[in-house]
Amino acid sequence: MFEFTVTARAGRARVGLFTTPHGDLVTPVFAPVGTQATVKALTPAQVQELGATLVLANTYHLYLRPGDELIRDLGGLHEFMQWPGPILTDSGGFQVFSLAASRKIDDDGVTFKSHIDGSLHRFTPEKSIQIQENLGADIIMAFDECSDPNDRAYSRVAMERTHRWAERCFAAHTRRDQALFGIVQGGVDPDLRAESARFIASLGAPGIAIGGLSVGETKAEMYATLDLLTPLLPEDKPRYLMGVGTPEDLIEGVRRGVDLFDCVLPTRLARHHAVFSPEGRLNLMNAVYARDPRPIDETCDCYTCRAFSRAYLRHLITAKELLAGTLLSIHNLRALIRLMETMRAAIQDGSFESRVPEWLKQWRGNAERIKHKGHEG
Amino acid sequence: MFEFTVTARAGRARVGLFTTPHGDLVTPVFAPVGTQATVKALTPAQVQELGATLVLANTYHLYLRPGDELIRDLGGLHEFMQWPGPILTDSGGFQVFSLAASRKIDDDGVTFKSHIDGSLHRFTPEKSIQIQENLGADIIMAFDECSDPNDRAYSRVAMERTHRWAERCFAAHTRRDQALFGIVQGGVDPDLRAESARFIASLGAPGIAIGGLSVGETKAEMYATLDLLTPLLPEDKPRYLMGVGTPEDLIEGVRRGVDLFDCVLPTRLARHHAVFSPEGRLNLMNAVYARDPRPIDETCDCYTCRAFSRAYLRHLITAKELLAGTLLSIHNLRALIRLMETMRAAIQDGSFESRVPEWLKQWRGNAERIKHKGHEG
Repeated sequence: MFEFTVTARAGRARVGLFTTPHGDLVTPVFAPVGTQATVKALTPAQVQELGATLVLANTYHLYLRPGDELIRDLGGLHEFMQWPGPILTDSGGFQVFSLAASRKIDDDGVTFKSHIDGSLHRFTPEKSIQIQENLGADIIMAFDECSDPNDRAYSRVAMERTHRWAERCFAAHTRRDQALFGIVQGGVDPDLRAESARFIASLGAPGIAIGGLSVGETKAEMYATLDLLTPLLPEDKPRYLMGVGTPEDLIEGVRRGVDLFDCVLPTRLARHHAVFSPEGRLNLMNAVYARDPRPIDETCDCYTCRAFSRAYLRHLITAKELLAGTLLSIHNLRALIRLMETMRAAIQDGSFESRVPEWLKQWRGNAERIKHKGHEG
Repeated sequence: MFEFTVTARAGRARVGLFTTPHGDLVTPVFAPVGTQATVKALTPAQVQELGATLVLANTYHLYLRPGDELIRDLGGLHEFMQWPGPILTDSGGFQVFSLAASRKIDDDGVTFKSHIDGSLHRFTPEKSIQIQENLGADIIMAFDECSDPNDRAYSRVAMERTHRWAERCFAAHTRRDQALFGIVQGGVDPDLRAESARFIASLGAPGIAIGGLSVGETKAEMYATLDLLTPLLPEDKPRYLMGVGTPEDLIEGVRRGVDLFDCVLPTRLARHHAVFSPEGRLNLMNAVYARDPRPIDETCDCYTCRAFSRAYLRHLITAKELLAGTLLSIHNLRALIRLMETMRAAIQDGSFESRVPEWLKQWRGNAERIKHKGHEG
């Protein structure tokens, strides 16, 4: 279980096969986010139909509501949300630091108030693992502390705590059918990042996550950090860049050897009427689309683009119809998943490095990030 | 085109085949409502998957937004909303009387203010037909005036106006690929209803609608009106009971010889967390379902019941997830469509009349109506 085999390479980019108890993942892969055990506005059947293989769910949210023990008692997250493929849960750390109504960190853990009802809770590394074992995802994360990338002193403190917490997570973890990943922190400081990469790699985890990026640093800083990091990570373990990203960030991540990605961007944009397209990001509420008979993207093979005009989608948006969010989410997710398929094929057929400039140009108008809130708000 | 053939009978109940330019309808049939050219929260693919054959759209709403000429220019309603089967549009009359911000009726038509932006508009019988020809549904309705069933004097005035307007609608109608139905009015007064049935039947329309029911009268009054009406209507034309109904009303309508039904009830209930079940109508927000591993209805074959627990559905509701509306709508619509399938099969195999008491008992807890607002609000 949790074998990772690299099957093709192009520079540092690679295609891999990661085996999990719920099926094999071909990497690089983009995972839609199902914060509250649902990819917003989509049925699992629709998520499968658009080609998703891995979905992410949030430990913090599911612990608070409906509760990890309830999910365990109902057969675990796969059964609960009816997702038959692999699931990844985060550690809850990022959400506690970004979402909770208030929080108090000490070396043992974090005490925080729920953003839902203000109730008091405490996460420790052991507690995070216990929750994630109850949820039962295939890939789970060590409890970590994400720092402000512009605060070097805090980045060191947070990184060191993340390392101690990682050791405690591995000690606490009992389920053999879950791959526990360690998380590299260190902000945008090269020395801290290198130190963190070496430490986390030394733990022998079946995969390594890169945390603390796409949280306020520049794109140049993110790419420089990846340039530094991936050569320090084991070749035979999958690398997961957390909370990334835009189409451009996916291309830049894959070329630097990242294997797994997740981001709320496609589904959140969809709920704000924005879609990825070769013309750049479009806001379909714009009156210019009122009589536009074309699909969002003539080259896209998603259900939305195969069937519906921009005029119809704009009508759904102005009429505040729920179907708008569904159809736009299908397109945006399919666009990123198709981008990953295209990159995988190009790695396999040897054309990857020569095609990167074309993809970057094509997706340039879709590069803008959104502010992360730690969940699909 | 628009042949109606009765293929089986059980008392006054009948199974029929109604041919339309977008395929044959087996009756009795229940049509999901797609007020704004979308069955709320569902893709057309999902609506087809749950067995719907006919959908309804609202003339008043689509005239105001996005506009019937826009829909015409984009290829008509089938192409616009991507519904491949038959579509029925109402005349806009009921919505003008129930929804518009203000309205002034004269013998020629109705002047009203839009409920969206207060803009001033005027519907006449000719205008309603022109809009419905632009929309391009298979089955369209004559412009009518629906009265308060408890006001006999007004019921006569509205009925007589409905008759004059029906003649003007038939004179104005040009599209041979649309079946224009006349609408019987007359409140709950037996004499008025009989007069209206004879008049509308005399127009030779390919189908006859029964309006002005499920708008404030008692169930006993509605059933008595149907008892009186259907023997007065031509045997060889489909009968459409507008805006009905509850499972009980469908059973009582079919046994009295009604062929077509539509109602917002299943989708509106779904958005208010209520579902049809053999135990009666359930509100899945109730905490009693928090750990309930059962589907809504063990006997139901819908996607929701085949896959999801009540506990998961309740979680989606309490977490305010859009997927709740989708999954509950799928179940509620499938429940009514399955009820129609069951009744059709029983008419065909001779068991219909003996099974009516069983069905009425089974659905008793789901009989309550909702107040009609003339749209899917």
